[in-house]
Amino acid sequence: MTEPTSPHPSAQALHHAMSGLAGPLSAGAGTAPDYTAVPRPAAGEEPSVLILGAGVGGLTAAYELGRLGHRCTVLEPQPRTGGRNRTARRGDKLYELDGEGNSPVLTHTCAFDHGLYLNLGPGRIPHHHRRVLKYCTELGVALEPYIMETTANVLHRAGHTPPGRPWRNRRVANDTRGHLAALLSATLTGRDAFTGQLRDLLRKFGDLDEEGEYHGSTRSGYAEPLDVHEFPSPAPPLGLADLVVSEFWKHRFYQPVDHLWQATMFQPVGGMDRIVHALTERITTEYGVTVELGAEVTSVDLTGAGVRVGYRSGGQERTTTADYCVSNIPLPVLKQLELTGFSPEFGNAVTAVGFAPTCKVGWQANRRFWEDDRNQIFGGISFTDHPITQFWYPSHDYFSKTGTLTGAYNFGDNARDMGKRTPVERLGLARDGAVQLHREFLEKTTVPQDLGVSIAWHKVPHQLGGWADWDPADPAHQVAYKQLLQPEGDGRFYVVGDQASPLPGWQEGAMMSAQYVVAQILGLLPRTAPDTVQVPDAVFLTQGL
Amino acid sequence: MTEPTSPHPSAQALHHAMSGLAGPLSAGAGTAPDYTAVPRPAAGEEPSVLILGAGVGGLTAAYELGRLGHRCTVLEPQPRTGGRNRTARRGDKLYELDGEGNSPVLTHTCAFDHGLYLNLGPGRIPHHHRRVLKYCTELGVALEPYIMETTANVLHRAGHTPPGRPWRNRRVANDTRGHLAALLSATLTGRDAFTGQLRDLLRKFGDLDEEGEYHGSTRSGYAEPLDVHEFPSPAPPLGLADLVVSEFWKHRFYQPVDHLWQATMFQPVGGMDRIVHALTERITTEYGVTVELGAEVTSVDLTGAGVRVGYRSGGQERTTTADYCVSNIPLPVLKQLELTGFSPEFGNAVTAVGFAPTCKVGWQANRRFWEDDRNQIFGGISFTDHPITQFWYPSHDYFSKTGTLTGAYNFGDNARDMGKRTPVERLGLARDGAVQLHREFLEKTTVPQDLGVSIAWHKVPHQLGGWADWDPADPAHQVAYKQLLQPEGDGRFYVVGDQASPLPGWQEGAMMSAQYVVAQILGLLPRTAPDTVQVPDAVFLTQGL
Repeated sequence: MTEPTSPHPSAQALHHAMSGLAGPLSAGAGTAPDYTAVPRPAAGEEPSVLILGAGVGGLTAAYELGRLGHRCTVLEPQPRTGGRNRTARRGDKLYELDGEGNSPVLTHTCAFDHGLYLNLGPGRIPHHHRRVLKYCTELGVALEPYIMETTANVLHRAGHTPPGRPWRNRRVANDTRGHLAALLSATLTGRDAFTGQLRDLLRKFGDLDEEGEYHGSTRSGYAEPLDVHEFPSPAPPLGLADLVVSEFWKHRFYQPVDHLWQATMFQPVGGMDRIVHALTERITTEYGVTVELGAEVTSVDLTGAGVRVGYRSGGQERTTTADYCVSNIPLPVLKQLELTGFSPEFGNAVTAVGFAPTCKVGWQANRRFWEDDRNQIFGGISFTDHPITQFWYPSHDYFSKTGTLTGAYNFGDNARDMGKRTPVERLGLARDGAVQLHREFLEKTTVPQDLGVSIAWHKVPHQLGGWADWDPADPAHQVAYKQLLQPEGDGRFYVVGDQASPLPGWQEGAMMSAQYVVAQILGLLPRTAPDTVQVPDAVFLTQGL
Repeated sequence: MTEPTSPHPSAQALHHAMSGLAGPLSAGAGTAPDYTAVPRPAAGEEPSVLILGAGVGGLTAAYELGRLGHRCTVLEPQPRTGGRNRTARRGDKLYELDGEGNSPVLTHTCAFDHGLYLNLGPGRIPHHHRRVLKYCTELGVALEPYIMETTANVLHRAGHTPPGRPWRNRRVANDTRGHLAALLSATLTGRDAFTGQLRDLLRKFGDLDEEGEYHGSTRSGYAEPLDVHEFPSPAPPLGLADLVVSEFWKHRFYQPVDHLWQATMFQPVGGMDRIVHALTERITTEYGVTVELGAEVTSVDLTGAGVRVGYRSGGQERTTTADYCVSNIPLPVLKQLELTGFSPEFGNAVTAVGFAPTCKVGWQANRRFWEDDRNQIFGGISFTDHPITQFWYPSHDYFSKTGTLTGAYNFGDNARDMGKRTPVERLGLARDGAVQLHREFLEKTTVPQDLGVSIAWHKVPHQLGGWADWDPADPAHQVAYKQLLQPEGDGRFYVVGDQASPLPGWQEGAMMSAQYVVAQILGLLPRTAPDTVQVPDAVFLTQGL
């Protein structure tokens, strides 16, 4: 067995081998490092690694270490790899824990038509999540654009938007811009050149008239559809008072402006789980990694020379050992395990942060009514203050006959409340919300009730939430995050996943974390985190947008 | 021969048949009308129609009339259909008129690698151009998203952006927003609830701090790429003074905000000419339409009972006659024909409006450097004050090895000047402009000189420009546009094309115009235009954005 505190080969040699590479050592664009420059361990001296959990973080660690010749075994309690990266298709069974949080209960058997699918977890990849894009390229996972926002999307705000007639995104966005620009323009009294230029900028920014006033813009759409005699003309703008009083911006309207969701975004052709399928296939067929499904870890013991892991598989209690252990287990699940030989600081860190409640609802629609002449919606998200919060349109198979819609994506109390309901009640609630946006949801032949699915991630066995609910304002979280970046047991036990990254809830975070831990195991990075490390911000994801 | 002034069948009957349909009669969403409700002419009584020019307008007229059983012949001088809808591929030969504007001269033989292509004319389809989308669906033309803007695009402004380091779109857009919101917020002194809400809106709109000040935002990108220890933090914002003095908004920066270019946009998979190929195949194989290529019309005579058209084909002068004639010939070409039996008003209308000069340049790149870790650009447009004006990145085949770039798309004097240069000089100029945006253009192995193509549409035989240069401020244009919506020769001769629509330069305009003329021929619409008709605005396309 290799001595873990003196990694093989020497850290110095590896540092040298890696120099000049855009890997985790570099402040470069943060893509997958080229570990091929790292010397392979000699035959018979390959370190053994136990990876707990086949989520994206665990699979990435197995990919990198397996490629380097480490002997990796992945233990995964579920009958599939991917963790929260899950795509629902016909026949898929969804389970959640019962009211007491104990036994898994079947909530839905997905009944979508063949060929239809819906991403239940991550659904999009920013163009600056270079690790995800790089792995997709390496693995041959085809990508297509994910449309985050189209100006045809709508906004519903109870008591403010007319019943059954939500506001179009283009009106809210551009009428607001116009009004704000006009307000500012009216305050500019200077006659100098700079003020003149600023006034000109405002005219273009807000589509103001020559006097710097806003009286509506075709940016908000045309009053009438064009024809040979019918020219583009603006509808009367939404009033500034109506816009302000509606507080539309409190319902994630400006989320697409945030860097994380800026165009261009991508999605794998055929479903997000193409990534985990490709990873799983590559590591098992080419890198000699063993993936044991249905293997539920119950204990980790660091008191011996290596790492000793106890798990349940095929109704039996088993144990196995390795030189290293990489845990991709969500912290709320990890804290339920029997952990021996860990520092008290680590124990505190594991319990410091909870996982966030979040739900999604999926519908099959037998007619893509949202793309028709009246709606003209191709992708993007409609936002509402109804508990469903978000309503996603598919960014694929445009102009085809049928499709799937994400009928809810919510957080906090809305997610907690929805999670408490029965599957049938959830779909009822989701339909109520959808009707505010699209009257077509009244037609159950168009959107059949028995083809809906729902998932409350905080009730899903082995997951217990959407992401680590890191709060930069919580002093305990400062200590905990730093602690999780440092291995336990003299460099034998590591935590990976988006939970241990600045990107909670994002696959990029999971991959980043895996690369970091792999570099630590290889001795390419120190095994202590800097004192100044910040805390990830998950509050922003649910309340800041 | 059917009597043209009394269309077959009766206008009244057809009006009735069309009632309730979302066709040109309707103020609906303006999709392709369902002419199938129109009774077909009796066998042997099918009207004959000569369609001059196989551009999108002519092909659409042939599609609609051919489907109704009219006997259509399309005369097209070029060896291909499509007009300005042209996609360059390996082996394609491009011709332009020589300095004296007389004989066509070969400018380029496209040498792109097999499988690469570039749209030389129209390049995108707005989601509200319902006619184009409907025809694509009917014809089985697969569509994919065209990305108009990604925040990774760049802006170059000589003397304002640092040499070789253009500003990212996300910085210009969001730093401007932040500064403007902060300026307005500072003027708000009220303590009432409404002012409080307005201040809150500004905070979200501009990403201001609690005091309503702007000190930069991660919307403008991260100061450093993220890593496990490296958290999102904003770079220092571009200064308001730097932004204002640069007058960046005068270089089309806000074009993507206009309704015409708002997301979601589309493009045909495989090239824009898939549309004209599909139209051509459908009309010739299913609707019995004859398309004569290499047939150059020289005269139109309305003095007889029908329409008599003279044309040159295979080196011979020929004549043919028909009940109706639909001219898709660009007005600057039409005015060179021998026109007999036309009203003086029509003669004036044809000469009233010129066609706009516009150029495009296409490059093959042997490496998609713009998608790499440093550039991270997937689609969209970079804008510059260099004469190339626009620089487009491909919205297809992302993550592949090679690709094509649109290295210039310009107007007015820039286009006129570029058009006067030799093909080699144009590519030299385009490379100079591209280098300001991407130093990779210095590497001729990455972007080979001999794989570039250029087109000056105003010098292309049978086209003579990009679009009818309609100016609402020109009183002569008011008279001319109305005149062109009315047939000559007692309802026998019609003008179609985007030139006779409120959408100059757009395929939707061409299809709209064709549907209008078909409805006039069928007697579904009056053959006189309303007095109040407006004038299309092409000035906006080149100077207003």
